[in-house]
Amino acid sequence: MLHGPNLNLLGTRETSVYGTATLSEIDRDLKRLAEKEGVKLMIQQSNSEGELVDRIQKAAGRYHAVLINPAAYTHTSIALRDAIVSVGLPVVEVHLSNIYRREAFRRHSYIAEVAIGQICGFGACSYSLGLLAVIHHVRAKPKNKR
Amino acid sequence: MLHGPNLNLLGTRETSVYGTATLSEIDRDLKRLAEKEGVKLMIQQSNSEGELVDRIQKAAGRYHAVLINPAAYTHTSIALRDAIVSVGLPVVEVHLSNIYRREAFRRHSYIAEVAIGQICGFGACSYSLGLLAVIHHVRAKPKNKR
Amino acid sequence: MLHGPNLNLLGTRETSVYGTATLSEIDRDLKRLAEKEGVKLMIQQSNSEGELVDRIQKAAGRYHAVLINPAAYTHTSIALRDAIVSVGLPVVEVHLSNIYRREAFRRHSYIAEVAIGQICGFGACSYSLGLLAVIHHVRAKPKNKR
Amino acid sequence: MLHGPNLNLLGTRETSVYGTATLSEIDRDLKRLAEKEGVKLMIQQSNSEGELVDRIQKAAGRYHAVLINPAAYTHTSIALRDAIVSVGLPVVEVHLSNIYRREAFRRHSYIAEVAIGQICGFGACSYSLGLLAVIHHVRAKPKNKR
Amino acid sequence: MLHGPNLNLLGTRETSVYGTATLSEIDRDLKRLAEKEGVKLMIQQSNSEGELVDRIQKAAGRYHAVLINPAAYTHTSIALRDAIVSVGLPVVEVHLSNIYRREAFRRHSYIAEVAIGQICGFGACSYSLGLLAVIHHVRAKPKNKR
Amino acid sequence: MLHGPNLNLLGTRETSVYGTATLSEIDRDLKRLAEKEGVKLMIQQSNSEGELVDRIQKAAGRYHAVLINPAAYTHTSIALRDAIVSVGLPVVEVHLSNIYRREAFRRHSYIAEVAIGQICGFGACSYSLGLLAVIHHVRAKPKNKR
Amino acid sequence: MLHGPNLNLLGTRETSVYGTATLSEIDRDLKRLAEKEGVKLMIQQSNSEGELVDRIQKAAGRYHAVLINPAAYTHTSIALRDAIVSVGLPVVEVHLSNIYRREAFRRHSYIAEVAIGQICGFGACSYSLGLLAVIHHVRAKPKNKR
Amino acid sequence: MLHGPNLNLLGTRETSVYGTATLSEIDRDLKRLAEKEGVKLMIQQSNSEGELVDRIQKAAGRYHAVLINPAAYTHTSIALRDAIVSVGLPVVEVHLSNIYRREAFRRHSYIAEVAIGQICGFGACSYSLGLLAVIHHVRAKPKNKR
Amino acid sequence: MLHGPNLNLLGTRETSVYGTATLSEIDRDLKRLAEKEGVKLMIQQSNSEGELVDRIQKAAGRYHAVLINPAAYTHTSIALRDAIVSVGLPVVEVHLSNIYRREAFRRHSYIAEVAIGQICGFGACSYSLGLLAVIHHVRAKPKNKR
Amino acid sequence: MLHGPNLNLLGTRETSVYGTATLSEIDRDLKRLAEKEGVKLMIQQSNSEGELVDRIQKAAGRYHAVLINPAAYTHTSIALRDAIVSVGLPVVEVHLSNIYRREAFRRHSYIAEVAIGQICGFGACSYSLGLLAVIHHVRAKPKNKR
Amino acid sequence: MLHGPNLNLLGTRETSVYGTATLSEIDRDLKRLAEKEGVKLMIQQSNSEGELVDRIQKAAGRYHAVLINPAAYTHTSIALRDAIVSVGLPVVEVHLSNIYRREAFRRHSYIAEVAIGQICGFGACSYSLGLLAVIHHVRAKPKNKR
Amino acid sequence: MLHGPNLNLLGTRETSVYGTATLSEIDRDLKRLAEKEGVKLMIQQSNSEGELVDRIQKAAGRYHAVLINPAAYTHTSIALRDAIVSVGLPVVEVHLSNIYRREAFRRHSYIAEVAIGQICGFGACSYSLGLLAVIHHVRAKPKNKR
Repeated sequence: MLHGPNLNLLGTRETSVYGTATLSEIDRDLKRLAEKEGVKLMIQQSNSEGELVDRIQKAAGRYHAVLINPAAYTHTSIALRDAIVSVGLPVVEVHLSNIYRREAFRRHSYIAEVAIGQICGFGACSYSLGLLAVIHHVRAKPKNKR
Repeated sequence: MLHGPNLNLLGTRETSVYGTATLSEIDRDLKRLAEKEGVKLMIQQSNSEGELVDRIQKAAGRYHAVLINPAAYTHTSIALRDAIVSVGLPVVEVHLSNIYRREAFRRHSYIAEVAIGQICGFGACSYSLGLLAVIHHVRAKPKNKR
Repeated sequence: MLHGPNLNLLGTRETSVYGTATLSEIDRDLKRLAEKEGVKLMIQQSNSEGELVDRIQKAAGRYHAVLINPAAYTHTSIALRDAIVSVGLPVVEVHLSNIYRREAFRRHSYIAEVAIGQICGFGACSYSLGLLAVIHHVRAKPKNKR
Repeated sequence: MLHGPNLNLLGTRETSVYGTATLSEIDRDLKRLAEKEGVKLMIQQSNSEGELVDRIQKAAGRYHAVLINPAAYTHTSIALRDAIVSVGLPVVEVHLSNIYRREAFRRHSYIAEVAIGQICGFGACSYSLGLLAVIHHVRAKPKNKR
Repeated sequence: MLHGPNLNLLGTRETSVYGTATLSEIDRDLKRLAEKEGVKLMIQQSNSEGELVDRIQKAAGRYHAVLINPAAYTHTSIALRDAIVSVGLPVVEVHLSNIYRREAFRRHSYIAEVAIGQICGFGACSYSLGLLAVIHHVRAKPKNKR
Repeated sequence: MLHGPNLNLLGTRETSVYGTATLSEIDRDLKRLAEKEGVKLMIQQSNSEGELVDRIQKAAGRYHAVLINPAAYTHTSIALRDAIVSVGLPVVEVHLSNIYRREAFRRHSYIAEVAIGQICGFGACSYSLGLLAVIHHVRAKPKNKR
Repeated sequence: MLHGPNLNLLGTRETSVYGTATLSEIDRDLKRLAEKEGVKLMIQQSNSEGELVDRIQKAAGRYHAVLINPAAYTHTSIALRDAIVSVGLPVVEVHLSNIYRREAFRRHSYIAEVAIGQICGFGACSYSLGLLAVIHHVRAKPKNKR
Repeated sequence: MLHGPNLNLLGTRETSVYGTATLSEIDRDLKRLAEKEGVKLMIQQSNSEGELVDRIQKAAGRYHAVLINPAAYTHTSIALRDAIVSVGLPVVEVHLSNIYRREAFRRHSYIAEVAIGQICGFGACSYSLGLLAVIHHVRAKPKNKR
Repeated sequence: MLHGPNLNLLGTRETSVYGTATLSEIDRDLKRLAEKEGVKLMIQQSNSEGELVDRIQKAAGRYHAVLINPAAYTHTSIALRDAIVSVGLPVVEVHLSNIYRREAFRRHSYIAEVAIGQICGFGACSYSLGLLAVIHHVRAKPKNKR
Repeated sequence: MLHGPNLNLLGTRETSVYGTATLSEIDRDLKRLAEKEGVKLMIQQSNSEGELVDRIQKAAGRYHAVLINPAAYTHTSIALRDAIVSVGLPVVEVHLSNIYRREAFRRHSYIAEVAIGQICGFGACSYSLGLLAVIHHVRAKPKNKR
Repeated sequence: MLHGPNLNLLGTRETSVYGTATLSEIDRDLKRLAEKEGVKLMIQQSNSEGELVDRIQKAAGRYHAVLINPAAYTHTSIALRDAIVSVGLPVVEVHLSNIYRREAFRRHSYIAEVAIGQICGFGACSYSLGLLAVIHHVRAKPKNKR
Repeated sequence: MLHGPNLNLLGTRETSVYGTATLSEIDRDLKRLAEKEGVKLMIQQSNSEGELVDRIQKAAGRYHAVLINPAAYTHTSIALRDAIVSVGLPVVEVHLSNIYRREAFRRHSYIAEVAIGQICGFGACSYSLGLLAVIHHVRAKPKNKR
């Protein structure tokens, strides 16, 4: 699980948009869900595009998939997109808020075009749905489609 | 649960894009999940925009929320959007395929802008995630945000 | 008088945008005005684009003009536009809300380009002004201009 | 009532587009209608954007509303728009011709976005409908909506 | 053969654009041509997008190909396009008028992108050319190209 | 019949797009069809825009109509368009491939806007359909419409 | 002859763009040329859009044509355009500089679309050519074309 | 100092956007600041584009610089821009509100492209900052850069 | 003097747009005017872009300037533009019709951006004005500006 | 005070655009002004987007406001924008050069839309004006407006 | 090696953009390099689009690859592009100047999309690099990638 | 030599697009070529935009030129562009793949506009051509052009 820029402030910022759950609460819930599903989950957050690229590169060979909330970099980072394509891991993109109800520039995602799928708008629940989706995808892989 | 146009052909058409599950298989799985979660689920499919509008209108007062795969009408129907806003029910939008990997005209959704959130790209699994999302939303309502 | 999709919910939905008058109240007032002006008025509502096309076609030969609030189809229906041009009846387009103060996609009307004129923003009063306009137009026809 | 640029030539110019009624005939009819409705009507015409701004500013405190045909300035004048917003009076915008059937640049109105509503396409009749609309709006004010 | 919205008025409407042949005359001529070519031809017309989708779905398994004049839906219906792709039948698109000489919005066809080819501008003759094209395509199938 | 640039390579190039028929085979078939229909057919090919303009100019007064596959010049040549308008002959535009399934720049035709009609997507068959269309148009001329 | 805004500063401003001739020198030369051609020439300059509209209106009935350098209003004034159309006088548009070599916003002229023609780029000489053009046009009127 | 259209209503209009200071209060404060800085300050307001052009022209030779809040004309007046370039005086553009937080059409300034710089968003304080900027610029002129 | 494509048909084609003067009549009048002005004039016409480029190249060193009506190539030929810039001769662009009253694609000229100036809309008279302009420019050269 | 990328080279680079003052000279002057105004000023520069995000996050709770010259990230960084919104501190955006006189891509600022205001074009003086603006804003806060 | 329009003037024209080397000097250096590399090089220049198409067609079967500087036709010729695709030879595109530093219309290349690669901005050196690239490509062919 | 983001994965990722050579193989070959040409070559790779900016800044004064493959940052980084302009070193931009054959967003390069030139599409060979180009440029500097 990779958290993009400014998500470390979660729960303390713009709670009307992003909800009151802090990042550590979300992470704790995700880990519990991962445990329940019997999968190993590694969680990291960074405000730096380059660091997020580094981490996706390092995930190759160690993890089966990446769950990512690229936050602001969703809309501006081709480097993240290229990293995803390079490592060849399945990626699921999640967002706390419904990005289609916000500023026009948030409607375009460089990541969605190379991800398995996208989940947005359900607050902290977007993360658990995303984890379920990524687990389902990895397990179904032999028969999964485009 | 409302299925939009051409979804009745599911599993028999373009299986490389939409998977091999038929609509009735998907519906059966959804009903099982609904039952397990203790919620009542009504499922309908229509190829007609007007009929889908009628059904959303009729859902008001009878259901707590709408799970919808508007298919082609996602991108062309302001009437569906207006119906959703009119009835004031929470709506979750799901898609089998990742609409951001397809033709440019599939990137814009009139529905997403008035829905709680959107889930796409996980095949039949998009539906079960959507059902979980809608149930979670309705139960969390007193404390949910935009 | 033709009412487009979702107008059957009038007065019960988004009252801050559309006002509290129900469709039947509006229809009753319109009929009174028609009676006062000595004209016969037939009123229908439909959520279906095809049905609205059918009704415009049937109006030819029976009525002198069409007063229409095409609602969502204003912005998406070339079929309605073609029907209007086909039957050759004068058409007046009305809207309850001021469509120029709302979402960008509501600014374009396929209908206005083939109608006599357009009236919007006056709530239920848009209808009575529209009826007066259509009556005036039909009576003035021998000397009316483009 | 404010008439914008070139309307002083009415009835003598492009009669196929604007009809044969002269401005003074239109004004006379409007005054009669105002009298019949029991309202005081002041009518002015100007070819100058600045002068029209002045007059809107002066209307504040003296009149209850403004009926305006901004003509060419409809499409180019942000100053007129700002004046309308500044004085806070309800404004109804009217046009003789159907502006959606003419050049593309006539489709955008800076005024409509800050007016109560817009009426266009009915020739001199647009004015009387506009007067009725403005009177109705002012009288209904306690209960009027956006 | 499927006729789209408003084509039932053919010959009685806008004869300067669409010619004076009525739909039944066109259908009769087409049937004669079909007979001469030794093929079975079924002809239907509908003003409803949903109904046209239904009919394309039903054509699968019964017919070898679809000849369609989608009329107004050419430019607005992704549902029709999806139906065509779903059933996998070869489709030939025809238009009476030359759509490239009319309003700008008539230049884009959602159907042409998934059809074998397009024929437009020859009046009733577009239909017979289309029928010849579709027959030729089906017979040549083993050796036909993209 | 005028063939535009690169059509002389037909049958030897990109056979998956344009089919395996060579230009001389197509020309031979067209001449046979012309003979059968009792019309005189002159066929020329050129890679030069100026030469194609010259030939259209020379067709005036000698031929009743022009059948043209402008190939690449379809999308870039206003000179060809002007030539067609200048000579006043009816022109039918044909394409081997379905230009609406290819690169975006192939969707606009400067020629279609001044031609009788357009036929595309049927391979070599586009030519014979085009010849039938042009013959039908010339013979029907006294009663043909826009 | 009407000079638009800022032309009163001619010869004293931006001489690298507009040349060193002052407006009075240009006017003197124009009057001489008019005299030589035997025509009466009235010259006025204004920085105000409304005033220029007034003057065009007043020219109707007194002059046979208008020679205008609308300067900045070329690109922003629909009111000037409407005035020209209203009075029905032939108008020739001139510019000192080549407006196609300057900022992008100077490429569009609301006036050119309703003028006889446009002359630009020849400095003070644009005016004398414009005067010759307007004289020629008025004298040739019985046989002039669009 | 030049104030553009509607600024005369300052403090009495839309106080949530523009603050409660009236124009005369702002002018008084500016004069004090000018006095303190030892510079002569002339202040004028006009609702007319032509008049503002006149005043900029008259400033040449009398003043060292112009401080301007062009208000609505910021976005529509090429005439003002040309006047600024013509007189060759340094110009500083100020706005009370942050124009980048308002309607899209307020984002483009014809003036900024020919001004020294722009200050916006600080309410009445924008004016005093602007005055300081213009004074600093004029005094630093021998060494100032683009 | 260079005439672009299709101008050889002048006077015989679209006389409502281009007038009834034939190219040889125009050329004869131009030669007379040249003689009267004491300048040598060479006139050529071509339908080929490459040939027009050749002729502009050859003009370098032999002529002082080029008068050109690039016709259709005005809007599509960067090669002509590059040739003009390469040879460094002053070029004046003329058009018979007012290109700003015609199709949108005729509004952009690749040539005007590198020419001295442009004259359009005066029929055959555009040519004589152009010749006067070019002569004036060459004679004034020592003192002419951009 | 935060300086964005490449500002560390100030005074040594492109001095015709940015002036000859080095960053340390600017910082020294700013500190003096801060001292004079009795405020504490912390200054940092970074070439990294992620680091600038970190610093804005850390400013929350320690400083009352942020003065920022985001340089290149002005136009590309949604992460910086989100950081500003997250911490909820008032931000003033400054630029040395007039960004409206440079490349088109420099006209859009993701930061201005969430800042109090913007100051640009006054070289090193932009910074001191910005500091005055931010101090004024913080002190006036109880009565400041949008 | 194919040189496009106006390159025959090289070294004599716009030397600040294209350098002082003449085309024959460049050709001589290229031939020397070809000889050194042991490859046969044929060099041709033409100002005509059709002739360049002819030459590409003739290269098929005789040469292993094409090195081309399409000059102005880079941006306007779909016919050249189609010729390249038709003959199936590898093509390397070169430009003397850096086309991304010039007019906006020079940024799009119809050729680059079907070439192996593009080299621009190095003056005459672009040609020798291009020759090396094409030689390398042909020799590496068995293992070369898209 | 600077390698942008994700290039460290070269040879292990998407080998159909980028070839099978690893970055260290490319670097080794480049160093050999540098040695052969007698120039010192320093090679660095980074996934971080800020770090690449730092390195370009540090190159000033130590190196004569920069050879760069900015990878994803080509299309999104104005900071890199500003760094290049700031240090004033000649820069050559190279790409392994032909960026004009890929996604639309890869067609625009912020770097090319400030580089000497661009080389793309030749796989690892792009690098050696780039090195030759940069060496040639530095050696030819006294006589090089824009």
